[in-house]
Amino acid sequence: MAQTTPNHTQTVSGWAAHEPFGKITPYVFKRRENGDNDVTIEILYCGMCHTDLHYIRNDWGITMYPVVPGHEITGIITKVGRNVSKFKVGDRAGVGCLAATCLKCEYCKDGQENYCDQVQFSYNGIFWDGSITYGGYSKFLVADHRYVVRVPESVPMDSGAPLLCAGITVYCPMKDNNLLDSPVKRIGIVGLGGLGHVAVKFGKAFGHHVSVISTSPSKEKEAKERLGADDFIISTNAEQMQSKKRTLDFILDTVSAKHSLGPLLELLKVNGTLVIVGAPDKPVDLPSFPLIFGKRVVKGSMIGSIEETQEMMDVCGKHHITCDIEMVSTDQINEALDRLAKNDVKYRFVIDIAGKSSNL
Amino acid sequence: MAQTTPNHTQTVSGWAAHEPFGKITPYVFKRRENGDNDVTIEILYCGMCHTDLHYIRNDWGITMYPVVPGHEITGIITKVGRNVSKFKVGDRAGVGCLAATCLKCEYCKDGQENYCDQVQFSYNGIFWDGSITYGGYSKFLVADHRYVVRVPESVPMDSGAPLLCAGITVYCPMKDNNLLDSPVKRIGIVGLGGLGHVAVKFGKAFGHHVSVISTSPSKEKEAKERLGADDFIISTNAEQMQSKKRTLDFILDTVSAKHSLGPLLELLKVNGTLVIVGAPDKPVDLPSFPLIFGKRVVKGSMIGSIEETQEMMDVCGKHHITCDIEMVSTDQINEALDRLAKNDVKYRFVIDIAGKSSNL
Repeated sequence: MAQTTPNHTQTVSGWAAHEPFGKITPYVFKRRENGDNDVTIEILYCGMCHTDLHYIRNDWGITMYPVVPGHEITGIITKVGRNVSKFKVGDRAGVGCLAATCLKCEYCKDGQENYCDQVQFSYNGIFWDGSITYGGYSKFLVADHRYVVRVPESVPMDSGAPLLCAGITVYCPMKDNNLLDSPVKRIGIVGLGGLGHVAVKFGKAFGHHVSVISTSPSKEKEAKERLGADDFIISTNAEQMQSKKRTLDFILDTVSAKHSLGPLLELLKVNGTLVIVGAPDKPVDLPSFPLIFGKRVVKGSMIGSIEETQEMMDVCGKHHITCDIEMVSTDQINEALDRLAKNDVKYRFVIDIAGKSSNL
Repeated sequence: MAQTTPNHTQTVSGWAAHEPFGKITPYVFKRRENGDNDVTIEILYCGMCHTDLHYIRNDWGITMYPVVPGHEITGIITKVGRNVSKFKVGDRAGVGCLAATCLKCEYCKDGQENYCDQVQFSYNGIFWDGSITYGGYSKFLVADHRYVVRVPESVPMDSGAPLLCAGITVYCPMKDNNLLDSPVKRIGIVGLGGLGHVAVKFGKAFGHHVSVISTSPSKEKEAKERLGADDFIISTNAEQMQSKKRTLDFILDTVSAKHSLGPLLELLKVNGTLVIVGAPDKPVDLPSFPLIFGKRVVKGSMIGSIEETQEMMDVCGKHHITCDIEMVSTDQINEALDRLAKNDVKYRFVIDIAGKSSNL
């Protein structure tokens, strides 16, 4: 097994799922020695992403058990390899979804290593040494420094943790579609969850007119009053959807359940763009008429590169953007997962790995 | 009824469908007088587009019978309204899908009138005067000059007719995606029919590496030897599809049957674009993984503006691009429609409306 790789000598306490419908339980395992290119990070906080649930349950049929989830990790650097110059012991660090890429392909060379076809993730991946990667539901992490970012002083370690996945996932498509410094655009955010609520914050920070598009009328007050959304469109209300046709420049679709893109595409102006960042396990329906009659565009986007992730963290520091979180202790992980499965969270659970939070 | 509009005084012979499963039969109807902004065109040839079949059969539930199909029209101008300066009697003219747009919206003003939400088509549309539009399966046409293009001397009237729909439909997305004067790209054309075969010709004329992607192995020889395609990928051959992953910059999908975009998207490089120009009547399946893992793009495109159509006709004249056609007489329309329904045509039927062709 991969875990017997000779230099995997460090014992670490974590929390793992061992079978699709089992509970998360404490799990002691090995990590590699801190190599020349590595940093070791004492984990303080780890966000709970919906993807964790997919892996824990083996929804995608690719889980290697035991799986130690977690890819929204913040912590303090405790060891630094001799080839590492950009970090020192004591630095505030963040690790997201990436653990390794090939470093040689055009995407790795071009700062798009998240699209390298050899990409390996922070958990349930295979690292260069052949070992299976284990994520942030654990006390410490050894990571190649090329996949680690700084957490600015102005970004809290707890509510900043989910930015490493939820934040970068919504930041990149907004950047790619020129929303960072464009004149005011009318943008729609579909789904007001872990990703969506951060997208609303980015949209407002960048000066745009933001509409939340949701199936839940109950979220309107919160969306407008607390998150600052300008409009709220109930996607199941045909009359409302009709009245908003051809009004939006850009839509970010964060919904991870199967749904039809047709009604959403109708909201876009001609040449408008909808970006999908959720990962429904079944194909979504794409009707051709709203696509071709409006010359509309549907794009995919998956997290971001490390350079983009650092840039996003810095932007969050500047604009004081964080995730709204509910803090849980390590013995509340299963309860939190059950609630996450029902989308009963505002808006992200963060595990207090080091037990240092007073917010519990 | 719309046909009783007072100034509709000109009697014209045409061919119409009167019910979903009926035959096309000769049909005498009225067209408007040639107005100040109109030209009258003696129709020589009319291409038979797959869309004609959809309207004849009422596949989309929007057909107003009797329907006189046809939107790939070439002919000679016989009358010119007093406000018309760009055409004179005797000019070679072409009319495509557009009969009227609002002329006022941002898209009409910006040379994208094909995306005006008041767009009315050359048949089964409602013209400004309230009359139903009748298409090119008829002896002559009265058209507002703003929706008429010139047919260059170097474009034959018969094999040039289908360019007015099939040609512009594939030209525009190639232009919009910078294929007209870019360095060599690797492009894929899905479906080798009326649209696809012209797209292959454009792709080669613009200097690109062109792969035809088809379910029919029997088309390989023709695609390569006669149309000049560089590669042929059988989309049902999993091994071939696997070996071509991440190799293409651009795909033009001309298939109008329901299909999954997943395997096609896998052929694209990261950031690659697939444009849909077919109009399947059921939604196509869009799996999120190949979309997000490759940051890929799916776009729609519908014909082109009149300015773009003129530009396309001129490009065809310059590069000697025409459609490969099978000429039929007006009494062979039903037989041709039956064969069209089975995709048994290489590659476009053109009706010899004026009975002047010696190719029959």
